[in-house]
Amino acid sequence: MFYLIGLGLGDAKDVTVKGLDAIRKSKRVYLEAYTSILTVGKEALEEYYGREVILADRDMVEKDSDELLLDAEKEDVAFLVVGDPLGATTHTDLILRAVEKGIQYNVIHNASIMNAIGCCGLQLYNYGETVSIVFWEENWQPESFYDKILSNREKGMHTLCLLDIKMKEQTIENMMRGRPIYEPPRFLSASQASQQLLTIVEKREKSDTNTADLTPESLVVAVARVGASDQKIVTATLKEMTSVDVGPPLHSLVIPGHMHPLEEKMLELFALNDHVKSLLCTNTS
Amino acid sequence: MFYLIGLGLGDAKDVTVKGLDAIRKSKRVYLEAYTSILTVGKEALEEYYGREVILADRDMVEKDSDELLLDAEKEDVAFLVVGDPLGATTHTDLILRAVEKGIQYNVIHNASIMNAIGCCGLQLYNYGETVSIVFWEENWQPESFYDKILSNREKGMHTLCLLDIKMKEQTIENMMRGRPIYEPPRFLSASQASQQLLTIVEKREKSDTNTADLTPESLVVAVARVGASDQKIVTATLKEMTSVDVGPPLHSLVIPGHMHPLEEKMLELFALNDHVKSLLCTNTS
Repeated sequence: MFYLIGLGLGDAKDVTVKGLDAIRKSKRVYLEAYTSILTVGKEALEEYYGREVILADRDMVEKDSDELLLDAEKEDVAFLVVGDPLGATTHTDLILRAVEKGIQYNVIHNASIMNAIGCCGLQLYNYGETVSIVFWEENWQPESFYDKILSNREKGMHTLCLLDIKMKEQTIENMMRGRPIYEPPRFLSASQASQQLLTIVEKREKSDTNTADLTPESLVVAVARVGASDQKIVTATLKEMTSVDVGPPLHSLVIPGHMHPLEEKMLELFALNDHVKSLLCTNTS
Repeated sequence: MFYLIGLGLGDAKDVTVKGLDAIRKSKRVYLEAYTSILTVGKEALEEYYGREVILADRDMVEKDSDELLLDAEKEDVAFLVVGDPLGATTHTDLILRAVEKGIQYNVIHNASIMNAIGCCGLQLYNYGETVSIVFWEENWQPESFYDKILSNREKGMHTLCLLDIKMKEQTIENMMRGRPIYEPPRFLSASQASQQLLTIVEKREKSDTNTADLTPESLVVAVARVGASDQKIVTATLKEMTSVDVGPPLHSLVIPGHMHPLEEKMLELFALNDHVKSLLCTNTS
């Protein structure tokens, strides 16, 4: 059996009991190590599981899956993914390759940011399309995510913005010379993402009269390390958020659409200051 | 501490290790018993946890939360919710009431249909707004969910349709006479939901020329008992799906938007018949 097991939000104990049972009976245990990060190290997982954990990088998952799937038709192999196992295309690809080889598979689901974002108090059913905000570079500053946010807001929907993760990046020079030297991982912070968003808002401000438009005074919500003991949630204006530090990664950003009074009351719990509270109109209770 | 703990997809062992630890150290353990169902009974949970489990119905959660929150500022109380704890408005309401009383709270997240729907192979990031399909009654046959499906499809997005659950319903007579007699729970099946959808499609077919429109030949995906050992996924045309039985509840229905070849290949794994495979255009491999 080939198990795809969600580790949840990143602590060793966020695994489900069912997932832990499967890990402990597996012959080999791989950890997907390139689309997300754990808040604990591989060693902590190994100690907790009592099993060796093999790091699987993108090449192994996308190109050398034969090794990963080896003998999985006759013995148990576990493939661990932070969050839920089916967030990324490459993992359905793994399933398809397993099925082609006649290997049975079993997905053990877990929380991921896609549903745990409920922690900020905005209702999951009221989210529209999820967007990704990437690191802007000198010559590449995509703005398409802003149009998706507007499209959600026009329908009153909230937007979850997933923030860029750069793992195992190579400099162009190292890549061209074929040197396997990688840059340290980088994580787009909620404040950097807010700065990029503010840049777009200020650039477009005068050309548009759409009421769904964001302004520097629009409220946004930063969440950091969701589910961890030091989870942090902050509600602030877009302009303020550009200088809010919510600590170590991972961060996400939420752009509210139309809010129900209960949703506003929840955001108020996380308000940066009284100005933010005054912008949440249920602040009369 | 007031713990809101997600039980995941419904089996006792779908709880996380962190959640299980919190349950076992709590003085009182409540199970939210009106917005979802477990695939195992309360007794099975009690045996597995080694704790008494108190069923909390809507009245207790929405009106008598004092009992629920009693002494939670000085001892641990666990409130268990199938799926993730923050799917429903009433539970953020509980958090707000806890905070008002000066009680600390802790949310232990878990998988819910909102992210586990990734099991059918359509990418989570490509879902638009989630819709609910309710049981049609003789004089109440709302169609607004269809407009939301169209709006998602116009943007190429998939739609997750959550299907109605009727727990603790009273007949009008029993309600008027104040008799606490409740009907057996009812769950909208994927085939019933497809029939309601087909009725709308056939009614509107001639008046519209929108290419996002569904037709009786459009592909839809039924998922049942996601995460359980007898999970079932079926891809069929809308018309076919009206007579497909995917077994016991809970069911959900997915209406695909624009599909990536990998997404089509995943849906093909669950195709009802060769006709369905022929409609998935990557069926050339």
